[in-house]
Amino acid sequence: MPDAVLDFDRLSRTGVTEAVFCSGKTPAQIDYILGQARAADRPMLLTRLEADLAKAISFEYQTHLDYDPLSRTAIFGTIEASPLKGGAAIVTAGTSDLAIAHEAARTLRFHGFDASIFADVGVAGLWRLQQRLDELRRFRVVIAIAGLEGALFSVLGGLVAAPVIAVPSSIGYGVSAGGTVALQSALASCAPGVVAVNIDNGFGAACAAIAMMNMASRALGQTSQGALA
Amino acid sequence: MPDAVLDFDRLSRTGVTEAVFCSGKTPAQIDYILGQARAADRPMLLTRLEADLAKAISFEYQTHLDYDPLSRTAIFGTIEASPLKGGAAIVTAGTSDLAIAHEAARTLRFHGFDASIFADVGVAGLWRLQQRLDELRRFRVVIAIAGLEGALFSVLGGLVAAPVIAVPSSIGYGVSAGGTVALQSALASCAPGVVAVNIDNGFGAACAAIAMMNMASRALGQTSQGALA
Amino acid sequence: MPDAVLDFDRLSRTGVTEAVFCSGKTPAQIDYILGQARAADRPMLLTRLEADLAKAISFEYQTHLDYDPLSRTAIFGTIEASPLKGGAAIVTAGTSDLAIAHEAARTLRFHGFDASIFADVGVAGLWRLQQRLDELRRFRVVIAIAGLEGALFSVLGGLVAAPVIAVPSSIGYGVSAGGTVALQSALASCAPGVVAVNIDNGFGAACAAIAMMNMASRALGQTSQGALA
Amino acid sequence: MPDAVLDFDRLSRTGVTEAVFCSGKTPAQIDYILGQARAADRPMLLTRLEADLAKAISFEYQTHLDYDPLSRTAIFGTIEASPLKGGAAIVTAGTSDLAIAHEAARTLRFHGFDASIFADVGVAGLWRLQQRLDELRRFRVVIAIAGLEGALFSVLGGLVAAPVIAVPSSIGYGVSAGGTVALQSALASCAPGVVAVNIDNGFGAACAAIAMMNMASRALGQTSQGALA
Amino acid sequence: MPDAVLDFDRLSRTGVTEAVFCSGKTPAQIDYILGQARAADRPMLLTRLEADLAKAISFEYQTHLDYDPLSRTAIFGTIEASPLKGGAAIVTAGTSDLAIAHEAARTLRFHGFDASIFADVGVAGLWRLQQRLDELRRFRVVIAIAGLEGALFSVLGGLVAAPVIAVPSSIGYGVSAGGTVALQSALASCAPGVVAVNIDNGFGAACAAIAMMNMASRALGQTSQGALA
Amino acid sequence: MPDAVLDFDRLSRTGVTEAVFCSGKTPAQIDYILGQARAADRPMLLTRLEADLAKAISFEYQTHLDYDPLSRTAIFGTIEASPLKGGAAIVTAGTSDLAIAHEAARTLRFHGFDASIFADVGVAGLWRLQQRLDELRRFRVVIAIAGLEGALFSVLGGLVAAPVIAVPSSIGYGVSAGGTVALQSALASCAPGVVAVNIDNGFGAACAAIAMMNMASRALGQTSQGALA
Amino acid sequence: MPDAVLDFDRLSRTGVTEAVFCSGKTPAQIDYILGQARAADRPMLLTRLEADLAKAISFEYQTHLDYDPLSRTAIFGTIEASPLKGGAAIVTAGTSDLAIAHEAARTLRFHGFDASIFADVGVAGLWRLQQRLDELRRFRVVIAIAGLEGALFSVLGGLVAAPVIAVPSSIGYGVSAGGTVALQSALASCAPGVVAVNIDNGFGAACAAIAMMNMASRALGQTSQGALA
Amino acid sequence: MPDAVLDFDRLSRTGVTEAVFCSGKTPAQIDYILGQARAADRPMLLTRLEADLAKAISFEYQTHLDYDPLSRTAIFGTIEASPLKGGAAIVTAGTSDLAIAHEAARTLRFHGFDASIFADVGVAGLWRLQQRLDELRRFRVVIAIAGLEGALFSVLGGLVAAPVIAVPSSIGYGVSAGGTVALQSALASCAPGVVAVNIDNGFGAACAAIAMMNMASRALGQTSQGALA
Repeated sequence: MPDAVLDFDRLSRTGVTEAVFCSGKTPAQIDYILGQARAADRPMLLTRLEADLAKAISFEYQTHLDYDPLSRTAIFGTIEASPLKGGAAIVTAGTSDLAIAHEAARTLRFHGFDASIFADVGVAGLWRLQQRLDELRRFRVVIAIAGLEGALFSVLGGLVAAPVIAVPSSIGYGVSAGGTVALQSALASCAPGVVAVNIDNGFGAACAAIAMMNMASRALGQTSQGALA
Repeated sequence: MPDAVLDFDRLSRTGVTEAVFCSGKTPAQIDYILGQARAADRPMLLTRLEADLAKAISFEYQTHLDYDPLSRTAIFGTIEASPLKGGAAIVTAGTSDLAIAHEAARTLRFHGFDASIFADVGVAGLWRLQQRLDELRRFRVVIAIAGLEGALFSVLGGLVAAPVIAVPSSIGYGVSAGGTVALQSALASCAPGVVAVNIDNGFGAACAAIAMMNMASRALGQTSQGALA
Repeated sequence: MPDAVLDFDRLSRTGVTEAVFCSGKTPAQIDYILGQARAADRPMLLTRLEADLAKAISFEYQTHLDYDPLSRTAIFGTIEASPLKGGAAIVTAGTSDLAIAHEAARTLRFHGFDASIFADVGVAGLWRLQQRLDELRRFRVVIAIAGLEGALFSVLGGLVAAPVIAVPSSIGYGVSAGGTVALQSALASCAPGVVAVNIDNGFGAACAAIAMMNMASRALGQTSQGALA
Repeated sequence: MPDAVLDFDRLSRTGVTEAVFCSGKTPAQIDYILGQARAADRPMLLTRLEADLAKAISFEYQTHLDYDPLSRTAIFGTIEASPLKGGAAIVTAGTSDLAIAHEAARTLRFHGFDASIFADVGVAGLWRLQQRLDELRRFRVVIAIAGLEGALFSVLGGLVAAPVIAVPSSIGYGVSAGGTVALQSALASCAPGVVAVNIDNGFGAACAAIAMMNMASRALGQTSQGALA
Repeated sequence: MPDAVLDFDRLSRTGVTEAVFCSGKTPAQIDYILGQARAADRPMLLTRLEADLAKAISFEYQTHLDYDPLSRTAIFGTIEASPLKGGAAIVTAGTSDLAIAHEAARTLRFHGFDASIFADVGVAGLWRLQQRLDELRRFRVVIAIAGLEGALFSVLGGLVAAPVIAVPSSIGYGVSAGGTVALQSALASCAPGVVAVNIDNGFGAACAAIAMMNMASRALGQTSQGALA
Repeated sequence: MPDAVLDFDRLSRTGVTEAVFCSGKTPAQIDYILGQARAADRPMLLTRLEADLAKAISFEYQTHLDYDPLSRTAIFGTIEASPLKGGAAIVTAGTSDLAIAHEAARTLRFHGFDASIFADVGVAGLWRLQQRLDELRRFRVVIAIAGLEGALFSVLGGLVAAPVIAVPSSIGYGVSAGGTVALQSALASCAPGVVAVNIDNGFGAACAAIAMMNMASRALGQTSQGALA
Repeated sequence: MPDAVLDFDRLSRTGVTEAVFCSGKTPAQIDYILGQARAADRPMLLTRLEADLAKAISFEYQTHLDYDPLSRTAIFGTIEASPLKGGAAIVTAGTSDLAIAHEAARTLRFHGFDASIFADVGVAGLWRLQQRLDELRRFRVVIAIAGLEGALFSVLGGLVAAPVIAVPSSIGYGVSAGGTVALQSALASCAPGVVAVNIDNGFGAACAAIAMMNMASRALGQTSQGALA
Repeated sequence: MPDAVLDFDRLSRTGVTEAVFCSGKTPAQIDYILGQARAADRPMLLTRLEADLAKAISFEYQTHLDYDPLSRTAIFGTIEASPLKGGAAIVTAGTSDLAIAHEAARTLRFHGFDASIFADVGVAGLWRLQQRLDELRRFRVVIAIAGLEGALFSVLGGLVAAPVIAVPSSIGYGVSAGGTVALQSALASCAPGVVAVNIDNGFGAACAAIAMMNMASRALGQTSQGALA
């Protein structure tokens, strides 16, 4: 019995494709889905794909997979990227947030948008953020990733004009374990205009950024995105 | 002792002005703030201003206040609005969500953006939403307001290409009291790309929408916003 | 000392049999229970039986076990099924919900009721649900299984007349980890008439469906169930 | 601007009508809705209608309202009831649960079903429940209402064959304040087949009971409900 | 550096001895403690001692350990038991609660009190409890162990005159995972007089039962406990 | 319809009478219950009876009510008390816990047991507790009442041999608001043998103390309680 | 019966006096306490004293009360202050945090320490904090008060060398209602060395600051505090 | 791409150095950071460094690492310690809290401060704490570590004049699992002046203690710390 009905129409309907969330799926289920994608001649993004599971995918599909272990993402098939300069900035508070940053960056690039990562600019050493502020202000959207208390979201929101998409990360211990404190800090931010996605959801943040940039492009009356930054 | 230092610079820095969150402030504190605004010759938006508190503001400022009791907002001073057609759509699941919708709409208009409210299109009667879908799809940003289980956020997110900003509302009882369920539904949405702000935060949703539309306008290389919808 | 006193009388009292919840039990304890069942010449349903534990059951009982690894259920002894057509529809939002769906289906069949599974009809691609709506409406009871934000429960509840039994699934991450958001969405649903059982409780949902269908059969004044759909 | 679009079609689609949840609505909004109902010549059920709000409804509608202060419900217009004998039993653990019981009973009667209330049969004095068990077993559906620890749900679920719909009540203090413990007890019940609705949601429990009884009636191949108990 | 200062005086001060909670301790730390006990010529009770850790204890102490893997307790040294008849009844709702029951029973016996276990008398099959009620009523204290919704606590509390000490067990899934629901049910019980200890805390329940029985014995004006049941 | 069926048999079954929890009841409901009590010629304890509600009770019952506003309890009818010396000690951490202390004391006296209150012996000034320790140790049961962090429970549990029944109080603010911290401290106490009842539940603590003292009396083989302290 | 035993010895034992937490106390209880203070010839600090309660205190004590309605504190009797220059800085994120700031300042002054308030330096307008940083760095202890997401705590902790005592404030709505988010942000701070007290606990923060400054003074080998800033 | 920008300036700015929180980092990332430290000729403290990860660090750095498995800390490079006598006392309630105690002690020594550990002085055996009280009172700062209900924090806070920094430990089970109860007890403490850091955060407690002692030293007008205890 087919247990996955792909929503190929989603791209035209919403501007982002349906990705395969691999956590909790069996190799056979992923094979089945990749078979559908190949039959339809569509590239496909896979997220939360652990290395062990990636190796268990059928050999005929393996060779068409571009797998990245840090972000646990894979791209199946080929994409014709024509990236925008300066699409989105991805800012991380700590080294441990890099996996999420790369999930977001890979999702953006899969959809034809560029992304630059600004690592390790947490607010305990505020000068690190201030040093790179001019550079940051040239981007159309900012994705901010932070765990612990998530103070980065409010500080950024008070400094830049671009929309700030907060991605709380689950790194932490004690009260910050699991990312709930960072999430609530994003929502309770004293800097109005910060928006939040689920904990560790680099993919969702990228989808939101794409929706924003696609909207801007439609405002330009053209399908290819113009240079901004 | 002055206990409020207004951040007039915020508009140029982030594209939105600092508003006065009136909940928990005394009439004297609000008078003090309005005095600063008048001295600087700046218009000012006041939020969470209950009718009783509004009446207690000093008479010299009262006459310059445009107060709306449903949204509990007031605009102090005059604004020169040159609204965009089709800026943002504001969609509500139920009648009780209208106060938040109007807070968002007033915030958008204060910053020069138009807003259209689509009331009472909750998913229990899905035909109400589907009937208005074509109209909705013409907007650049969608602000969705829902309490209870917040299913509206996911349904909308799967149907439109514009960024969807979810505002959970605190209307409800039992498990949905206070808006937490609706908030978590927005964050856990199966429709990638939905972003969330704090419960009942119509003001914040509008600020985020403004940041997105300002970014699109900058992409157009001009300060006035072009027509889209 | 005997540490399990089976309640064989439950079937006549409530219409469902006592099943063996295997999680946390030792092979010896399960052997002891199956011995009681054999002595009483009763078939028995085992739930939450992991493959390793199933293999550790005494050989004399193994040969009488029909084990299904996906749903982690086993049926001990033989049952004389005379299934009703169109008993219950089991609807899942995603591929990961299939294990619960099969637990419910096996429980229904153990008690003599048929069940049809409608997989992968989550609301992010609403057309998938709408495409199958006419078919769904022919069933007497609908069991709906969804994780993440559980928007499926409300959408279904607004579209069908049959009772909708919501089973939140624990699949998810961040705020949706563990199934609490989906559970609360079912309880806070804007579509009145949706009822909920515990997270991942496919067995309990089936028991509730059986109680409903048995009641309908008694309304027909007969012990065998008549055809409906 | 009309801020309520009634879903009159819901009755034919789901078997229950859309009721007006009055909490948080203004008299003008309720008047507007009642005007729509009168224009369509439909009776309407109002829930969570506090006495003060009921008095503020426009006089022309007041005279057509049948208001019950205990359950805070009102029925607008006339209904032609042809109640079933023995439709649903409503069982309460304590005196304080009676308001919810009456909300459920009024909802059932509005839709043409009878309901009998069994008050004060909590499990601390188990003999009270056992004394009335034979009588209870004659009903097609049991709605059980309990606060505190909600032990009544499990005890009932182990004794009757009818579906048991648990309504946790918010009466209590300390850990049981707000009804969460009773709700979780219903969901975690050791008696399989108990289903739950939101805290204090007598209306929703009745809607679920109606869906179950309507299904049974359709099984009988007729639109009017036949006698059972 | 000595990192454990045993409180041998506790027995005379409170009537119960200090036990060694082994979870999180190293073999060396346990050896050190047992060395202190041997030097003082005192028997000692060890709780939460996993089999692997028990094996890692120094050989010279191993031979004086009476280890029970089900309850994960060990008794070091010899105790001169002169048990009371009918000291405490230990009632469990399910098979999975037996480990806790045995921890309580071993603690009671270590202190010279007898304990009888009544297994598998959960309320979903109420007849099992009622069948043994006369027997249960002969005990001076009842320790009740239940997971899931913990309805057993209230039912027992309404039926017996002895103090009922509720021990919530962590067995369960979904909302009942971890034992919180059972704990809150004990605290919110409609049967006044039920008292609770921490989740899975069979040791603590036994200590409380000992304090109660010691008090009764002192009421008899003697240090040895007289027969009751 | 009678909506309260009194459980007069409870006294002989469990040793404590059914009390009337007045919160949420109407004057008419309380009148109805008192009428039943008078007809049966039974005294009755009323708890959580606010002064306003007490005044609204029918005049014919008022004259037989002994009402205490601090503890919000009333005794209806006459009781023949023959109190034990030294029954229970009631220890409070702060002045604000006195209302609960008096609820417990009145409940004890209603059942024929004496109670002594030791006020204001919180652990921040440990000398206050130590000063009265010898006196405290002469009681058969200790009821301890504390809000905030509830450290009193553990300190007492390590110092006395009597059973310690912890009553968390809801007095507090911030994290201690509502009594949850004090409750959890009682349950997590490092002093084994402390047992807990619900927040603010002075009545339940007294019932548990009565069950313990009744058990001790039965151990003495007599119905009247002998002197202990 | 005396229900308050003042701990006058606390000052010499810990360096701070016992204050009277007035919330939940009656005028008679406060009168009783002030009588004790007068008899001992001691000044006394009262906290959480609402204006209405302050007015209800006996007239003979009123005249010796210095009451401040903003901070809800009163000082009874006369204190001989010899304040340190530059003792503690009190920094607030918003206007609404001023009541807590004044509670802390009054507590400091009652114990002979000076305090300077830096109002309205929240991180959404970071320049306001940076502008005053040199001034702030001259203080020995910093008390920081913030609600919402509490980002101020981390930013301050990364900029100053003095100990930072975080006081979360309960001002806020949605997820930040009640101060829990700000509290957890303080605890999860990425700036090591930030310490936290309970929500709204300006009194406790001041006590901690006093303990720190007293320790520094003892390090100086003298009882009077030397100048620092 | 460099993904770690060390904040070497933090020591001069705040008096504590930036430490490397190793949990969640790869050996390569740690190597990269140690390389930066070596290049700058700075010693570095590593926390939460599991033994396996420590072994995976590059050989050239291994030889300069002083690793302690109990506290999971390592010191890279050489430090010139000139410890103060009697800097800080570290008090633990139980044996399981020693790992945190050693993390704090190592952090203090890395920064040039001495620390003395007082193990196993929990309040269930209060005499153990009282026995060592005179000794404890000679320290300038007290770091207290406790799990379970954390009663130690309040008892200590009422007995000593030094600032008490509470570190809740995650050791425990049932309601105390994870350390939340101990944390909330610290915050809700009836002994004013107790401050808290995150659960298990021995490093943070030491940083706070250092800030306090540095402040005291600056009060002495000198950079080297004078003798106190």
